[in-house]
Amino acid sequence: MEEKYYKNPIHGADINSEAKLYEIDPENIIDFSSNINPFEVNCMDKIIELGYKNLKKYPDINYTNLKRNISEYIECKEEYIIPGNGATEIIYLLMRKIGKRLAIINPTFSEYRKSAQIAGIKIIDFTMNYNEEFELNLEEIEKKSNEFDSIFICNPNNPDGKLRNIDKLLEFAKKKNKLLIVDETFIEFAEDEKERSLIYEIENNKNLFIIRAITKFFGIPGIRLGYGVTSNLDLLNKMYEEKEPWTINSFADAATEFIFSDREYIKKSKEYFFKERKFFINELKKIEGIKVFDSNSNFILLKFEDKRVLEIKKNLLKRAGILIRDASNFIGLDDRFARVAIKNHKDNILLIDAIKSVLGE
Amino acid sequence: MEEKYYKNPIHGADINSEAKLYEIDPENIIDFSSNINPFEVNCMDKIIELGYKNLKKYPDINYTNLKRNISEYIECKEEYIIPGNGATEIIYLLMRKIGKRLAIINPTFSEYRKSAQIAGIKIIDFTMNYNEEFELNLEEIEKKSNEFDSIFICNPNNPDGKLRNIDKLLEFAKKKNKLLIVDETFIEFAEDEKERSLIYEIENNKNLFIIRAITKFFGIPGIRLGYGVTSNLDLLNKMYEEKEPWTINSFADAATEFIFSDREYIKKSKEYFFKERKFFINELKKIEGIKVFDSNSNFILLKFEDKRVLEIKKNLLKRAGILIRDASNFIGLDDRFARVAIKNHKDNILLIDAIKSVLGE
Repeated sequence: MEEKYYKNPIHGADINSEAKLYEIDPENIIDFSSNINPFEVNCMDKIIELGYKNLKKYPDINYTNLKRNISEYIECKEEYIIPGNGATEIIYLLMRKIGKRLAIINPTFSEYRKSAQIAGIKIIDFTMNYNEEFELNLEEIEKKSNEFDSIFICNPNNPDGKLRNIDKLLEFAKKKNKLLIVDETFIEFAEDEKERSLIYEIENNKNLFIIRAITKFFGIPGIRLGYGVTSNLDLLNKMYEEKEPWTINSFADAATEFIFSDREYIKKSKEYFFKERKFFINELKKIEGIKVFDSNSNFILLKFEDKRVLEIKKNLLKRAGILIRDASNFIGLDDRFARVAIKNHKDNILLIDAIKSVLGE
Repeated sequence: MEEKYYKNPIHGADINSEAKLYEIDPENIIDFSSNINPFEVNCMDKIIELGYKNLKKYPDINYTNLKRNISEYIECKEEYIIPGNGATEIIYLLMRKIGKRLAIINPTFSEYRKSAQIAGIKIIDFTMNYNEEFELNLEEIEKKSNEFDSIFICNPNNPDGKLRNIDKLLEFAKKKNKLLIVDETFIEFAEDEKERSLIYEIENNKNLFIIRAITKFFGIPGIRLGYGVTSNLDLLNKMYEEKEPWTINSFADAATEFIFSDREYIKKSKEYFFKERKFFINELKKIEGIKVFDSNSNFILLKFEDKRVLEIKKNLLKRAGILIRDASNFIGLDDRFARVAIKNHKDNILLIDAIKSVLGE
């Protein structure tokens, strides 16, 4: 049963299919299933203008400006950066170039597994237990360290949203010569971004590979831009050798000229999420029949104590046009789990009220 | 020596590197090295508006509208279509799913070879001879038919620009059970598009795979959209299984809503290229010291009879800021070959005059 999900991962945000399934107009759906910052960058006009201006040219095959812009944002050398068509391109490309045995920390984003399987990689699963608040069991990982070459973790993790201190995992990886791959796609939403991000460890850790994207925090998933960062130039060069040319479109390239210096947007987003997350989690915790997991990201994992997520999801769609993410297909979770995005305050209230009603039914 | 090119193909349009090399402001370069329609679609505002509207959503993972729009344009069933981030994604994905021995008809686009090599495919080269006007030698192909499973041809071909009648190649492929892959990226520029395109043969030929893109004819390489077409659903499903999710950005998706019905643009472009190509080729043929190859596309291959292309290229850049494509790295060509795009009439005249001057020096 699970195998089916691995081969064809189910994601959030497939609004059209959901709308068709439940016979609702997709335009009327409030989408809590995909994790996107609800604000819009202030520099959107500039992005559109420059992207449009460059449409008639092939993207710069060397991504010169783009790499420089990312480099300034994350304060890392340009030569450590590989940009991609979303984080996805980076993940798929990386999987083709790492050792043939990969550990994955579950529950997590299904594309790690899918891309590894396509690359013919043997996967060893570690699963954080929801009964232990998804605590990372480093001891277990150390015990099985002979069984993998690389280890993949998402931090903050999707679907639980928790930002972990993984300094010890990095230490372990360094000592045992494992490649530590960290997906930091959601890290800008976390209060402790600066303290927890391993981006500052890149220079001194060749066994570290970080994946990021502008999709989530900058709220433009349709533009498609992610990037990988590592000081392991041997690995990076191997990736560049097999990288398809021109994968980044002119709007994504243009976005990097403006978004990272859109300080107002960054500040507003952080302030909003720090505050709204607390509010949202508190309100959800007040509802009987749900276990709410603490999050440092822009989404929250819920466990319905005695209802099935599929039933709740159906009822929320019917009642309020609200689409939540059925999280039952994540390894280590079951059919009581749902993931909801933190959207604008008004929508969040709608969700809270709708869940209350639906659970009370 | 050649091996170097195969691993890191050199393409046209790398204006920044060229500008740096020759110490010229990239803004002042007239780029004849990349083959892009100089006109702009009339529906650009609509594309930008819809693309922008959808930026905050993930691209539809099933590409429902996009596939329908392409399907209507090429008059093929939706289920035969796989869209990609440019033709490149399709080429790379296809190479991972075909048999392990591929024939390539040279000289041609270098990414076929690169993607095949990355996929671990053994390549057998057929080379059309410039002394025989790049005639396709079907006899030779038939003779070696035991040495390959698939055969890749570009039609019209890059770099010679010639549109070939490949009906017999399709017949051969069908008879011998080979997969025929045809890159028709430039076919809309040809007078005989309807007569020569194999798109109408898709339904009845499971051994046919056609690659197209909106890059060239619709003049928007920065938007990144290509597609593959085949009635071989077994092959297509294998490709879909390994396809990375969300590779097509919201502007590319939006473009398909409008460009194919932009009849005025299509008509204007065709009329322009049919006429301007004749003029341009005739004028070039008048210049002594160049052999000009007849083209059905939006570019023209030139052979300098007693000069090296590198010298001409350098002199054109210095004299007139004109960048041409050094075509010496195509298999079967040598250091006397250049490829030039057909641009707007004024630019074309500039090129003709500049070549005359440079050759007269």
